[in-house]
Amino acid sequence: MHNEQEIRDYVLRRVKPSKEEDELIWNTANSLLNRANEEIKKRNLEGDAILVGSVAKGTYLKNPDIDIFLRFPKDLNKEDLKNLGIEIGKSIIPDGFAKYAEHPYWRGIYNGFEVDIVPCYKISKPEEKISAVDRTPFHTEYIKKNLKDEQKDEIRLLKAFLKGIEIYGAEARVCGFSGYLSELLILKYGNFENVLANVSKWRKKVYLHLGEGGKKFRDPVVFIDPVDPNRNAASAVSEESKSLFIHASRSYIEKPSKNFFFPNPTIPLSKEKIKEEINKRETFFYVFEFPKPDIIDDNLYPQINRTMEALTKILKDFGIINTFYIVQNSKVYFLIELAKTALPKVKIHEGPPVWHQNSKNFIERWRGKALRGPYIKGYRLFVEVQRKNTSIEEVLFHNLPNYKLGKEFDKLKNEINLGEIWNFMEKLDRVELTKFLIFKFPWER
Amino acid sequence: MHNEQEIRDYVLRRVKPSKEEDELIWNTANSLLNRANEEIKKRNLEGDAILVGSVAKGTYLKNPDIDIFLRFPKDLNKEDLKNLGIEIGKSIIPDGFAKYAEHPYWRGIYNGFEVDIVPCYKISKPEEKISAVDRTPFHTEYIKKNLKDEQKDEIRLLKAFLKGIEIYGAEARVCGFSGYLSELLILKYGNFENVLANVSKWRKKVYLHLGEGGKKFRDPVVFIDPVDPNRNAASAVSEESKSLFIHASRSYIEKPSKNFFFPNPTIPLSKEKIKEEINKRETFFYVFEFPKPDIIDDNLYPQINRTMEALTKILKDFGIINTFYIVQNSKVYFLIELAKTALPKVKIHEGPPVWHQNSKNFIERWRGKALRGPYIKGYRLFVEVQRKNTSIEEVLFHNLPNYKLGKEFDKLKNEINLGEIWNFMEKLDRVELTKFLIFKFPWER
Repeated sequence: MHNEQEIRDYVLRRVKPSKEEDELIWNTANSLLNRANEEIKKRNLEGDAILVGSVAKGTYLKNPDIDIFLRFPKDLNKEDLKNLGIEIGKSIIPDGFAKYAEHPYWRGIYNGFEVDIVPCYKISKPEEKISAVDRTPFHTEYIKKNLKDEQKDEIRLLKAFLKGIEIYGAEARVCGFSGYLSELLILKYGNFENVLANVSKWRKKVYLHLGEGGKKFRDPVVFIDPVDPNRNAASAVSEESKSLFIHASRSYIEKPSKNFFFPNPTIPLSKEKIKEEINKRETFFYVFEFPKPDIIDDNLYPQINRTMEALTKILKDFGIINTFYIVQNSKVYFLIELAKTALPKVKIHEGPPVWHQNSKNFIERWRGKALRGPYIKGYRLFVEVQRKNTSIEEVLFHNLPNYKLGKEFDKLKNEINLGEIWNFMEKLDRVELTKFLIFKFPWER
Repeated sequence: MHNEQEIRDYVLRRVKPSKEEDELIWNTANSLLNRANEEIKKRNLEGDAILVGSVAKGTYLKNPDIDIFLRFPKDLNKEDLKNLGIEIGKSIIPDGFAKYAEHPYWRGIYNGFEVDIVPCYKISKPEEKISAVDRTPFHTEYIKKNLKDEQKDEIRLLKAFLKGIEIYGAEARVCGFSGYLSELLILKYGNFENVLANVSKWRKKVYLHLGEGGKKFRDPVVFIDPVDPNRNAASAVSEESKSLFIHASRSYIEKPSKNFFFPNPTIPLSKEKIKEEINKRETFFYVFEFPKPDIIDDNLYPQINRTMEALTKILKDFGIINTFYIVQNSKVYFLIELAKTALPKVKIHEGPPVWHQNSKNFIERWRGKALRGPYIKGYRLFVEVQRKNTSIEEVLFHNLPNYKLGKEFDKLKNEINLGEIWNFMEKLDRVELTKFLIFKFPWER
């Protein structure tokens, strides 16, 4: 399927709700709004319920989440605001549950749709925001006001594309492009094809805005939020996600395919093939198994990254080839590929410049104790000293107390299992292992 | 022996010629000058013979070389100048031989002293110099004019100190402090103790001059030549020699000893002890044996350094711990201590940024051929590819054709013998091996 029009039609057929589905979505949203306003009235509260998010904006894909915001006056205290959200949510969807981000809210299934009921403050302009979500209604309003009807499908195409190449979503697990950012990109560039054409020309610095610019940011992608010029609407986008978007755009333009929107799943290699792939590299794959901390994903993934950074720093002398992590069941597995598994007994230790006030101490400390030296190289003193810890296990357990992993992982330092990958082969997800061993861009699978 | 005065006396007793020796030196020098002037006159040439160097300046140690310069008018052509030097030299010392630096000269033994007879142009100021040695008589004149009699022993002490700590001489093998530079240091700082006191405070940049300053230089030590402000009289001094001088000065001031002037020789370790030292480091010592090129030392040593640099570049993936060379009989041995002897089969290959015009070629070139990737890290493409050469021998012989060793060593690429140090244990000088394995500053042996 090479014709771009055919691809567009195919994608929209698969992601865009039908007339009947649309009707059901809107009936459900209206029913939720009525129920919410009743509950507010019943309690004699000032306030209202509004629909926000992709349903409100008409940019939703099939089976969307429905986001209902409960707006209360600014003088309501924060504790009451939070409690009201939970209380009203519970009375509308009794079998839901509370979720805690910066701000608690209520999540449940209603009419078959996943629904979030979120309390916020009713403010007159975004600068007045008190809680993190107060700005959301303005985003919804902005898009509703500025997006042309015919652009809604363009947004659906863009979202499907970003989903397909696995960078859709601002959450920490993805570090990609949010729904709102997708909408801004369509407003900026007009339509889906134009977004790709422009993204394919992005380079190191990307600074975008609608109308006037705003503050400077250091993020890989900057898109000044038209609702608040002090905010970067693309702050979640990582360097990798940006680069993947650029590369995918170039690749799509060169050879369009529905695989960008609907990639094939990774076909796991057999155990034998996995062993073969590992063996032919002549490197060493180590696995560090941690219990999975019981925290939300947006806290978990940054901590995973921090933990991986610490592990690679500790093991850097073994020659890091590559790293990967797998979150599976109640465990987090850190996989690190190393060039070797033993360090020499000798370690070069850099001292001060010969003229430095500490050079005397340095010499006195090491004279007779060093394997070689103190000696001079360039203008510095050096010694070669005996390395105490030469195996991965020794180096790890000697250094672990001095390194900061992610906060929750720090508490789990005593519960690490580690060893060569062979000891974990029965446990580890073969799809994930395959992705680690044989990287493929999603659309090329 | 801790008293500095005692040390001074002891050193001077050992290095300063006695009255009788002095007389012999001067009789010899005068006899050489007479013979040389006779030869010039005999040939009806305009010109004269002069005494230069440490004998002329009165700063010589025991058993000095005697340097006779034959000065000819500026209009003599260079070929004739060179030939005359050889011809007259030969007639004075028939069993001498010609030496070739930038400029040929005659060397021989006369009255038991080593004598150099060097032709040069007689110029009226140093800027007019035609050949490299024309400036030398001005150096001699400058020192004779400015040095006080009582400073001559200070120079002897400084020279003996520099000799003892093994950085006396501007030649490429040493990269240290010449006789002339030693004299300038005494002129600058007054006496031996003051030189050490000042050197012990030297830091990264050392810029010295007598009277007015001169040109800027990037060398580790700069001493503007008072005879030619466009020349750095310390240009030969390496960073290591400078640092060693600083460190030795600080050490001497802290604890003076005659060992700085007359270090003990290195006592070679037994073969068994050498093996033990190597084994306890758990590293790998490789030896690269080259035939020794038949060139003068001032060309040989820079080429040895260049060759060592090339070898360490080629082998850097094996983890260079240390290097050393031994020039012995008709061979040059390069010793390289490595952290490992085999590389993994996989090699990370960095590609262009995703947005670069070459990124398409990069992907096409490696797709299906790489062990992993192309994949994105940061904003770049990467692949992991199969490494063809994983042993030291393979890596060396694959890369050797592409690297520049020293000029003469380049011609010897096909005559290298290499292997682990055990294969060379019978050949290698144990004193040198001991120096490599257990570094000691000369005065601490």
